Order: sequence, then structure tokens, then C-alpha cells
Amino acid sequence: MDFIYKKLIEDELKELELSLNDSISSDIQLATEVSNYLVGSGGKRIRPALCILVAKALDYSGKDLIRLASSIELLHTATLIHDDVVDESLTRRGKESIHAKWDNAHGVLVGDFVYSKAFQLMASFENPEIIRTLADATNRISEGEVLQLTLKNQSILSEKDYFEVIDRKTAELFKVSAITAGILCSSTDTQLSGLSNFAKSLGIAFQIQDDILDYYGEEKLTGKKIGKDFEEGKFTLPIIIALKESTEENQNKLLSLFKKGEREDFPKVLALLNKANTLEKIEEVFHHYTKECMKELNHIPQNDYKIALEDIVSNLGSRLT
Amino acid sequence: MDFIYKKLIEDELKELELSLNDSISSDIQLATEVSNYLVGSGGKRIRPALCILVAKALDYSGKDLIRLASSIELLHTATLIHDDVVDESLTRRGKESIHAKWDNAHGVLVGDFVYSKAFQLMASFENPEIIRTLADATNRISEGEVLQLTLKNQSILSEKDYFEVIDRKTAELFKVSAITAGILCSSTDTQLSGLSNFAKSLGIAFQIQDDILDYYGEEKLTGKKIGKDFEEGKFTLPIIIALKESTEENQNKLLSLFKKGEREDFPKVLALLNKANTLEKIEEVFHHYTKECMKELNHIPQNDYKIALEDIVSNLGSRLT
Repeated sequence: MDFIYKKLIEDELKELELSLNDSISSDIQLATEVSNYLVGSGGKRIRPALCILVAKALDYSGKDLIRLASSIELLHTATLIHDDVVDESLTRRGKESIHAKWDNAHGVLVGDFVYSKAFQLMASFENPEIIRTLADATNRISEGEVLQLTLKNQSILSEKDYFEVIDRKTAELFKVSAITAGILCSSTDTQLSGLSNFAKSLGIAFQIQDDILDYYGEEKLTGKKIGKDFEEGKFTLPIIIALKESTEENQNKLLSLFKKGEREDFPKVLALLNKANTLEKIEEVFHHYTKECMKELNHIPQNDYKIALEDIVSNLGSRLT
Repeated sequence: MDFIYKKLIEDELKELELSLNDSISSDIQLATEVSNYLVGSGGKRIRPALCILVAKALDYSGKDLIRLASSIELLHTATLIHDDVVDESLTRRGKESIHAKWDNAHGVLVGDFVYSKAFQLMASFENPEIIRTLADATNRISEGEVLQLTLKNQSILSEKDYFEVIDRKTAELFKVSAITAGILCSSTDTQLSGLSNFAKSLGIAFQIQDDILDYYGEEKLTGKKIGKDFEEGKFTLPIIIALKESTEENQNKLLSLFKKGEREDFPKVLALLNKANTLEKIEEVFHHYTKECMKELNHIPQNDYKIALEDIVSNLGSRLT
């Protein structure tokens, strides 16, 4: 099952690709080549789609939308490039990561180049509130990255810290995609607050789904390798909940397997997760956030774009159960 | 001999330190700690000083100046942090580099944090021209970094490429420091163009001086280790000029020593540079740019701040001969 939005805003998504392509073209050939390697490789474009759908749902007809959506996608891409350098990840979007295909230096500097292109787009808006909202988000995301670094050396990540990190690293850019679209449409403060709550919950649900799929997904469906978080020693919600819900004996077993991070132990880890009913518990958390999403969508008038937004929410859930 | 500006704008430079300190303070303690390690360690503050002096020379009395100067210094600091990751440099401002004291991840992510703080400051200006000028500069600087990466694998760096890189990596931020100060003061286009030429030439002279001092400086005076560029295999103007001015035999000797980059060979390299009269030739180039600086300063009315700007130019030269 595919998302409704892909058809509904097909034209805008095509314009987005052209705009992204145009934005990263530079006199410095290497900058264009390396950034296009990742920017041109697709990805779900969920953040720009969110931005476009919200603006369309609020009846926007101006000329700034694709530029706004592009700046958000470029900001997202820049963080991915630097994330891969920091995590030493070898793959991204089914290809070698920039860091792996070239080296550290290319990852750092081309990441900076893509950031700078995002900032140039941001700086092009007439409305200073849009520029400030995007700059503040950039800062909160970057703080989230540093927070994650701080928490890396802890033996266990708390649920509170997990949510603090994903609020900054994932939910923030979702939030800003919806809020800036609202600002473009001169939304009221009540509307903006509703959009913010909606997109924040969507971002959290999106991240939780991603974390669940890393343990319970099917590689064929998701295109992603299962067990990557486990192997990289990344504390995500499945492990956090399983630890909370397990007997002390199983907690110790789980922690010891998690610390080793050996692929061959993954079935044992799954068995321990199942004993603690992890999937059920985590789906409860997930559905809490998708319900929040649906509730906050009430602020948006009924139209096809709103239906597409609801579809994103329910489509996320349908991939789980 | 010290720069006049340090006394003349002492109060503003103190305010700058407070503003920098304030800007990098964050809920995320590690972000503050690591960025303060470099931001708080001084440095010449030549770019913010330039910005402050130009605005004062043009009789600025508004409230935006320190914020502007801070955003420029933070942008500069962020590039230093990422430069050190990319070059794997172990020292910066006489201390261990962030990358060396912590690790790669801290360098990349705290660099991003400092960038994001620079952008937040930039985004705070009412005048969109200032925001756009700073965003464009960020992009040109980042393109310069990628260009340098492209040129790294070439066996020889041409003089043209050398100037293209320093124009982007060094002169650009000098230029923007002066131009944005001019924009704050509602300067005419002619004035802005004069400021731009002045600061660009100053940036180039500053970089050439830095490159000369790496071969001919005294560690006691500069606080920097001599021969670092040579050991790191960095093609700078002394080597480029020496190669141009040497016999074929000496060219080959020089290139072969340069490729090895052994500290013990440094005296031999200096001897080859001397045979080609490198210092004389490079000083000609240097003085071409300082003369340009002085000429372009004619656009600025005569006052103490202008004298301090002239002093920066002549002080640069006095450290050489």
C-alpha cells in the first residue's frame, strides 16, 4: 500500500526534485557530485511532503512553497551526511554512505556544503519569522545530536532521554515543516499550535515505527537491513521497553547480548523481546502518538490534502500490524 | 608592537566576548563545554574587530553591531573546528584541537552546533540583506573547502588555484565582515564596493602573511609551530613561488622533499627557498595587496577607527620584515 500523497502532490514533488537538483549545483564540481549522490537518491521526502500538504490543505497558492520544502529536505540531508560520519555507518538509502564511498573529509565538508545551501534557501524568504523558525530548529536538531553523544557512554538509555533525543533529532524537523507551512499561510496562533502538535506527534510516531521495524520489519518491504540498531549498539525503544518489562534475569541476559552486538545473537534478543511482550507494549506507545496526530488534524479544514495527511498517519501504523 | 584597535575598541571587544559566551551557552552541557573550549580560548578576533572598526568608522551607533560581529566569529570558529577534523590537526590556538582532545564525532557535531548558533544570530537581523550576505558567504566558504579537497590530490597546486582557495576560505569572511558593517550603516553601493575590495585584499594579505610565517616566522613571536604546512604537505605560496623561480634541478629536489614532508628536511627546504629568493618575491605579492588595502580605505572618512584599520594593514607587514 502506498501513500496517497505521492499521487496527490505528484507535480509538486517533481518540482521539488528539480529545485533540490538546482540548489546543490555549484561551480565546484565535486560539491555537486557528492551531494547529488545522496540528494538525488530519493528517500521518502516525507518532510517536504508534509510541508507541501499542510500548505495545500490551508489553501496556499503563493510561490514560496517548493523553496521552503527544499530547504527543509536539504537540512535533513546535511544531518544525514554528518550522522553517517559520526556513526561510521557504511550504508544510506541502500547505497554506500558518502563517508564510506569517499572519506571522512568528504562527509564533513560536503555535509557543510549542503547545510550552506539549505541556509541560502532559508535566507531567501521575505518573512523573517520563517527564517528564525528554521534557524532555531537547526540549533535544536544540532543540540539533539550533541545530547545523543553525551548519552552514548551511559550503560542504559532512559525512556525520558530517548524521547528527548528523538524530539530534537526527528520530531523537530517534522514540526518545523508543518509550522513554516502554516506561517506561509498566515495561520492563527491556535492553528500553528495545532500544526506543531500534529507534526511533533507524527515525527515521534515515525521514529518509533523506524525503531520497531529495525527489530520486527521485513527487509523486502522496508529495504532496510534488520538488526542494524542492535549491531551498532543503538539504544532504541524496543530495547528500552523490553528491559523495563523483563525479569531481572532476562534484563541481564538482554543487556549482555546488547553490549556484544553480535548478529548471530539477534534471534536470542528477539526471543527475549517477545517474552516481555515488547511489540504489544511499543504499539501502545505508537498508537498513543498516532491518535494525537489524528486529534490535532481537526484544526485543518476537510479536503483532499487533509485526507492525505491522515493517510500518512494510518499508513505508518498499517506497516506495523 | 600591538594593534591599535585592541585599545580603541576595548569595550566592544569585551562585549563581544560576553556575547560569544552567551551565544554558545546551551541546555546541552556538552555543547557549551566543548564549544567554549575553543571559542573561549581567544584568538585574534580579527574578523569581528574589522566589522566593529568599519561600522564605527562609518559612525554606527545602533544596537546590532556586537551581534553581527559575534555571528561572524562563530561562523569562523565552526569552520576551524571542521577544518581540524578534516586535516586531522592536533593543535589549535596553542591547545589540543577538539578533534584531538575528544574525537571525530565531537568535532563534527560541536562544529555543527557552533554553525547553528551563528545562523541563529544571523537570522535575528531585521535587514534581510545582512542575512542573505552572510548566508551566501557561508556557501562560498564551504565551496572553498570542497575545492581544496578537489585540489588535494594534484601533485602541484597552481598559483591561480591557491588564490581561488584563499579567496573563498579566508578573504570571503573578511569581505563579509566589512560589507555587513557597511550595510548596517546604510552605506552607498560605491562605499560597499570599496569596503569589499579593502577587506578582500586584507584577507588575502593576512593569509599570505600566515603562509610566510609558517616558513620564516619565529615561534616565540607567533606562538605557532614553524614548518607545520610543510609537514602536513600543504601547498602554500612560499612553495608555489619557490617552484616557479627555481632551476629544474632545484624544483625536483624541492618537490621530492615536500612530498616526504620530514621535519629534519626543513632546513634543506628553507635553503632551496632562499636560493630562489622566495621571501623577496612573496613580499612583493604581499605588498601589492597591502597597497590595495590602503587605496581602498580612501572611501572611509578620516577618524581614529580608520587609523586603526590602516594600522592593521601596516602591522601585518611589520611582522614580516
